[in-house]
Amino acid sequence: MSKNNDEIFKNVISHAKEYGFVFQSSEIYDGLSAVYDYGQLGAELKNNIKAYWWKSMVQMHENIVGIDSAIFMHPKVWKASGHVDGFNDPMIDNKDSKKRYRADQLLEDKITRYEKDGKTDKANQLQEAMDNALKAEDMTALRDLIVEHEIACPVSGTRNWTDVRQFNLMFSTQFGAMAEGSEEIYLRPETAQGIFVNFLNVQKSGRMKIPFGIAQIGKAFRNEVIARQFIMRMREFEQMEMQFFVRPGEDKKWFDYWKIARLKWHTALGTSSEKYRFHDHVKLAHYANAATDIEFDFPFGFKEVEGIHSRTDFDLTQHQEFSGKKLQYFDSELNEEGKPYGNYVPYVIETSIGLDRMFLLTMINAFEEQDLSTAEKKDSRTLLRLHPCLAPIKVAIFPLTKKDGLPEKAREIMNSLKIDFNCVYEEKDAIGKRYRRQDAIGTPFCVTVDHQSLEDDTVTIRHRDSMEQERVAIADLEQMIGKRVSWRNLLA
Amino acid sequence: MSKNNDEIFKNVISHAKEYGFVFQSSEIYDGLSAVYDYGQLGAELKNNIKAYWWKSMVQMHENIVGIDSAIFMHPKVWKASGHVDGFNDPMIDNKDSKKRYRADQLLEDKITRYEKDGKTDKANQLQEAMDNALKAEDMTALRDLIVEHEIACPVSGTRNWTDVRQFNLMFSTQFGAMAEGSEEIYLRPETAQGIFVNFLNVQKSGRMKIPFGIAQIGKAFRNEVIARQFIMRMREFEQMEMQFFVRPGEDKKWFDYWKIARLKWHTALGTSSEKYRFHDHVKLAHYANAATDIEFDFPFGFKEVEGIHSRTDFDLTQHQEFSGKKLQYFDSELNEEGKPYGNYVPYVIETSIGLDRMFLLTMINAFEEQDLSTAEKKDSRTLLRLHPCLAPIKVAIFPLTKKDGLPEKAREIMNSLKIDFNCVYEEKDAIGKRYRRQDAIGTPFCVTVDHQSLEDDTVTIRHRDSMEQERVAIADLEQMIGKRVSWRNLLA
Repeated sequence: MSKNNDEIFKNVISHAKEYGFVFQSSEIYDGLSAVYDYGQLGAELKNNIKAYWWKSMVQMHENIVGIDSAIFMHPKVWKASGHVDGFNDPMIDNKDSKKRYRADQLLEDKITRYEKDGKTDKANQLQEAMDNALKAEDMTALRDLIVEHEIACPVSGTRNWTDVRQFNLMFSTQFGAMAEGSEEIYLRPETAQGIFVNFLNVQKSGRMKIPFGIAQIGKAFRNEVIARQFIMRMREFEQMEMQFFVRPGEDKKWFDYWKIARLKWHTALGTSSEKYRFHDHVKLAHYANAATDIEFDFPFGFKEVEGIHSRTDFDLTQHQEFSGKKLQYFDSELNEEGKPYGNYVPYVIETSIGLDRMFLLTMINAFEEQDLSTAEKKDSRTLLRLHPCLAPIKVAIFPLTKKDGLPEKAREIMNSLKIDFNCVYEEKDAIGKRYRRQDAIGTPFCVTVDHQSLEDDTVTIRHRDSMEQERVAIADLEQMIGKRVSWRNLLA
Repeated sequence: MSKNNDEIFKNVISHAKEYGFVFQSSEIYDGLSAVYDYGQLGAELKNNIKAYWWKSMVQMHENIVGIDSAIFMHPKVWKASGHVDGFNDPMIDNKDSKKRYRADQLLEDKITRYEKDGKTDKANQLQEAMDNALKAEDMTALRDLIVEHEIACPVSGTRNWTDVRQFNLMFSTQFGAMAEGSEEIYLRPETAQGIFVNFLNVQKSGRMKIPFGIAQIGKAFRNEVIARQFIMRMREFEQMEMQFFVRPGEDKKWFDYWKIARLKWHTALGTSSEKYRFHDHVKLAHYANAATDIEFDFPFGFKEVEGIHSRTDFDLTQHQEFSGKKLQYFDSELNEEGKPYGNYVPYVIETSIGLDRMFLLTMINAFEEQDLSTAEKKDSRTLLRLHPCLAPIKVAIFPLTKKDGLPEKAREIMNSLKIDFNCVYEEKDAIGKRYRRQDAIGTPFCVTVDHQSLEDDTVTIRHRDSMEQERVAIADLEQMIGKRVSWRNLLA
């Protein structure tokens, strides 16, 4: 059943909708572009991914604490961070089709075309010219390149272009209802700044000692011009970020530490390490002195799922300057060591993972269409090989038939298990069909109550991946399942 | 140590900041009005409240599932729900002070004054006139009442008023970056509509049968004119909502069911039921045929923390009309029963609790300043009597002294417990001071490692509320604590 990547991706998307993992936002109103809702199974899977991250980052690290800062922040925050002035995409409109494009993407498409046509020199030349224009923020130069390389609008086919203009990616809104007028504020485009502005509050109230980290899970918003690939690039998305505050000079050491630690977090889920790679940034953002992406082998190629950035003291220094408040740490241990400074602005290593991308990665990685055909009979099943800790439903409980007191017995088991585990109960359809439905949503265990159960208080437990069944005592179920879905399997 | 309510409230607020529960948003920039951030302990407490709600609503109910819909929704959603046209506050400005007020609140203050002055007739008269004007949405009448009753601006003292104007409480933003122009969309003012627009998707993909519920936890936003009382009324806040879909005609039964069930959820935490009361709505919102608030006895009076609303088929019917899509349920069981209809728009019972209010309630209810003075010595402690399931930190681990291998032993215990429980380790300061610090943040158990521990592998465990200590085997700690912090205590 080998399929090409496009097909697999399409199948994952339709599977996600069919079983209630992901729906398009406001679908009955024909949707809202690049915004998605998590359905009844998606919400559980997403919550489990969050829990895994939070437990391994916060609960397991004595020196990392988690916060939950608001989406709304003082507008000066985004002046200080550079987002008001620098968080732009260069946009160009075609006057005939009235379509708008990112100028750099039009150019990159052209570069790809040159490469495909074997015109490597031309490709390299254009790449360099574009990089220079972007670096200099020279919009005229970008437009000149589009004209020079005869790029036409894919819709109208004409080369009738407007000027290139900067378009800020932050959403803004009017805040307050004062007679003196309201204030323009932004929806945060990243959660990181919520950590930086709370740095001193957390350090002091939590009596934190460097090195220490502050973690956060939360929504962020970017008015992406071209949103695509399902939940890969959305206008509303969720981040799981941790900012680790270190002594100046120890940033390189901790950058290397977190690179390794974060990759381990991914592979602990059982994903082959060949599916992952690091992609070190050559061109660095203005705030960074080192940066790498953890990329995953998506059906559409290796793409970033997490970034590890050595942000230097850029953010805290900017906030010091714009707020007029000192954001420094008094390092009493340095003083004990006789080192020259005691007060300093810490350096920061950031680990930032896209929760929605992690969700997509998890779905794609778990999705399998298995051929179960034998010589006698064609058969197949769709399977989500989710790690038991991440599976939305841990146990499905089935009475073999709808009579003879089997449903009552099954419900009794359900009622005792559901306090500890997310369970479902199903009595409709043949047992094989019920198994298949649980395979498709990644439920690791199916418990079936049959006539023997009434006699000896045993049931069969069926394992998702191996499809093997074993007979166990009802009294042992809780411990047996508990062991397999315990967070210890991922954290210890 | 009896204090008045104002003082208690002030103490809770400063306690919340001092220990890292709640910080003002963007505090280093002098804050953002009516927006707050949850600090390192607040985030944990908030997560635990969420978990309690989610587990008891979703995990424990076979017929309730949870979703996670986006904050951004199609703008027509808010046309259908009535928020674009009807979600307004009547505002009036004083021309001298340039201050803006809610017209109805100016009038209500006046009514309170009349009552205090024993002018009951006048109070009743004004109340009725105001209610009529609000019902008729007659802004001129509202202004006339302000003039007639000689209400002056509290700042300027003058009666130089503008007209009364409607002010919509939704935040809006420009969505998209198309050349054809962007679209104005809203930040959702409630999470409920995210459930209604997904009703069919969830029902079909989850094969849900009526009666069933859809639950959701998420952010909502209201541009409140007068935000006050700390995190009681914020511009950015979080809701935990469940919409329960029922047969028409069975709405009253389920309304009563959920009233009782939701109050039980609150009192299961150990809060005295005298602290709670129902407040049935006399004037109903346009979508409701019954509504009650669960009110809690805050230091500033009984205030709503949760609402239970019988929303009829209003929302689904509106969305049918505005989207042109059928939002009906085919009730095969009704057909079996020979009842006249099989397809219908379900009726809805909503339970909607403010997460931030629940957080505040929990802090206030747990906060206690205890006098521990004896004849010989004055002593006191500040205590957060949080339910162990909600406590941000479950166990604090202390070596009695910093030497003799006690820290190593303590860390060994910490490392084995932290996989299951949120733990802290502290070795600084006298043991009594360390106990007090844990009391103040609600940690139910402190484990102290002393010299005897090295010999017989026992430790003392100290209980927060009773301050009693007992000697236990290290090997028994996990089970002992596990039992006390288990969700079974709240759910079973």
